[in-house]
Amino acid sequence: MIKRRRNIGCAEAALSVTTETKVRFSEVDSMQVVWHGGYVRYFEDGREAFGRRYEGIGYMDFYANGYTAPIVDLQVQYLSPLTVNETAVIETRYIDTEAAKICFEYVIRRGSDGAVAARGCTTQVFVGSDGEMCLNNPVFYEEWKQRWLKR
Amino acid sequence: MIKRRRNIGCAEAALSVTTETKVRFSEVDSMQVVWHGGYVRYFEDGREAFGRRYEGIGYMDFYANGYTAPIVDLQVQYLSPLTVNETAVIETRYIDTEAAKICFEYVIRRGSDGAVAARGCTTQVFVGSDGEMCLNNPVFYEEWKQRWLKR
Amino acid sequence: MIKRRRNIGCAEAALSVTTETKVRFSEVDSMQVVWHGGYVRYFEDGREAFGRRYEGIGYMDFYANGYTAPIVDLQVQYLSPLTVNETAVIETRYIDTEAAKICFEYVIRRGSDGAVAARGCTTQVFVGSDGEMCLNNPVFYEEWKQRWLKR
Amino acid sequence: MIKRRRNIGCAEAALSVTTETKVRFSEVDSMQVVWHGGYVRYFEDGREAFGRRYEGIGYMDFYANGYTAPIVDLQVQYLSPLTVNETAVIETRYIDTEAAKICFEYVIRRGSDGAVAARGCTTQVFVGSDGEMCLNNPVFYEEWKQRWLKR
Repeated sequence: MIKRRRNIGCAEAALSVTTETKVRFSEVDSMQVVWHGGYVRYFEDGREAFGRRYEGIGYMDFYANGYTAPIVDLQVQYLSPLTVNETAVIETRYIDTEAAKICFEYVIRRGSDGAVAARGCTTQVFVGSDGEMCLNNPVFYEEWKQRWLKR
Repeated sequence: MIKRRRNIGCAEAALSVTTETKVRFSEVDSMQVVWHGGYVRYFEDGREAFGRRYEGIGYMDFYANGYTAPIVDLQVQYLSPLTVNETAVIETRYIDTEAAKICFEYVIRRGSDGAVAARGCTTQVFVGSDGEMCLNNPVFYEEWKQRWLKR
Repeated sequence: MIKRRRNIGCAEAALSVTTETKVRFSEVDSMQVVWHGGYVRYFEDGREAFGRRYEGIGYMDFYANGYTAPIVDLQVQYLSPLTVNETAVIETRYIDTEAAKICFEYVIRRGSDGAVAARGCTTQVFVGSDGEMCLNNPVFYEEWKQRWLKR
Repeated sequence: MIKRRRNIGCAEAALSVTTETKVRFSEVDSMQVVWHGGYVRYFEDGREAFGRRYEGIGYMDFYANGYTAPIVDLQVQYLSPLTVNETAVIETRYIDTEAAKICFEYVIRRGSDGAVAARGCTTQVFVGSDGEMCLNNPVFYEEWKQRWLKR
């Protein structure tokens, strides 16, 4: 049985960044709305904006420290479709966790009226240069946490 | 709090179809593996193959009957990356439900060794020509069920 | 025999608009550079920015006037690759012509040093609601020309 | 001035391969036809099918020999649109040349009636591990030519 997840967007976000992007013609499907797979790219836009704001947690930072941080879990809930030329406002919320993971939640809103178009979350793990998943946070990530979360 | 879902792939599938696709160069990211958003397209490939096998449940069938069936929920678990030129074997499993929904589960395996690369599920609802979500299954879908599920 | 075109970027542009976009992780291929097909999207970004600046020539304007304006010709020259997190600066140049066509040229530059990453051009024709290609410019497009080109 | 190219498809192809692909829902735009950028992917499908048939000329072969072969020129002519669920039949034609380049031409036909949907061509050059473009063909490519072109 599949237990579907609930309550995306209810966790307390330790940090968050909001960015926006115009819906491109090429992102809209034959139903005149953003193709559902297109939101995965919006989430990535959000994550990259987050990494620029709270520097040290972008793809290139992982790489420079000898790690990759592949996404192991992705969830999206679609609430209201976006159409061409609308603005997608992407809120990316960093959810702090004890585990050796990076958890983000996302809320995509329509620029014109603030309606929630979609919610979602991603989970990333750390993989070292030996190809093995890390059971503990890499040092650079712990330092990033201390720097930005001020724990 | 987010309750993450579990057990994708444990439900009994009423019907299933397996199709395959070569991993394209353009689907592979700078980490040399299929970009995580690319699996959404594989799921769609699977759904379309399913619609061809068990005819009457494709995008065009919805449309011909005056409905659309947007995806309202998408979940993906990533287990093992696929690289260029590998074959993605996509098993699409129809999960029967009493609700006015279409639920599919997906298992993506690597062609060479059968290793599970990803699992996932989608939920679709029916939207009528008035733009409202249907609380009951449209007649054409009930007929499709009777035809293929032999209930 | 193929006669390859020359001299993209040498025509006098009647109007031009410059916009920019961050290179997304998902746009970069396994060679660590923007996948060559990704530039088609940058051109479209440029065209849409142009349509917003010189209003009356966007996809929706065509549609509202009963036309579509499909691309019938696309050409791209690749000069220098763009990598992740670089900024693509997209110059979109409207090339006036007597024919019933819309011609744009594009120059994509790297934000950091202004190096030309790619050049290209597109040609669009008008198709009326009867599905036939227009031999003469639609009235709304002639008006657009008079408005912006001040002829 | 832009001199547009002519006569794609008129050169004598030394070798050719035909493959096909179903048009995916996600490839179709809001005009109900394959988005013009989608043909770049079909060309790549064609090139990869060619590389499998005439082995030694795929992305991985370049890489294994210490080269990359980036596309430096792309041209597409659009003749007739493809819609969802149609089959794109991709003919990839290798055009032999004396220059240190790889030239392909493509003809995309609609499966149902053979109508030409698009034509195009790509040019690739060789870049060595020093990042410099090769002025002469690499040895492995000359050997590939001798093997398959029997010159």
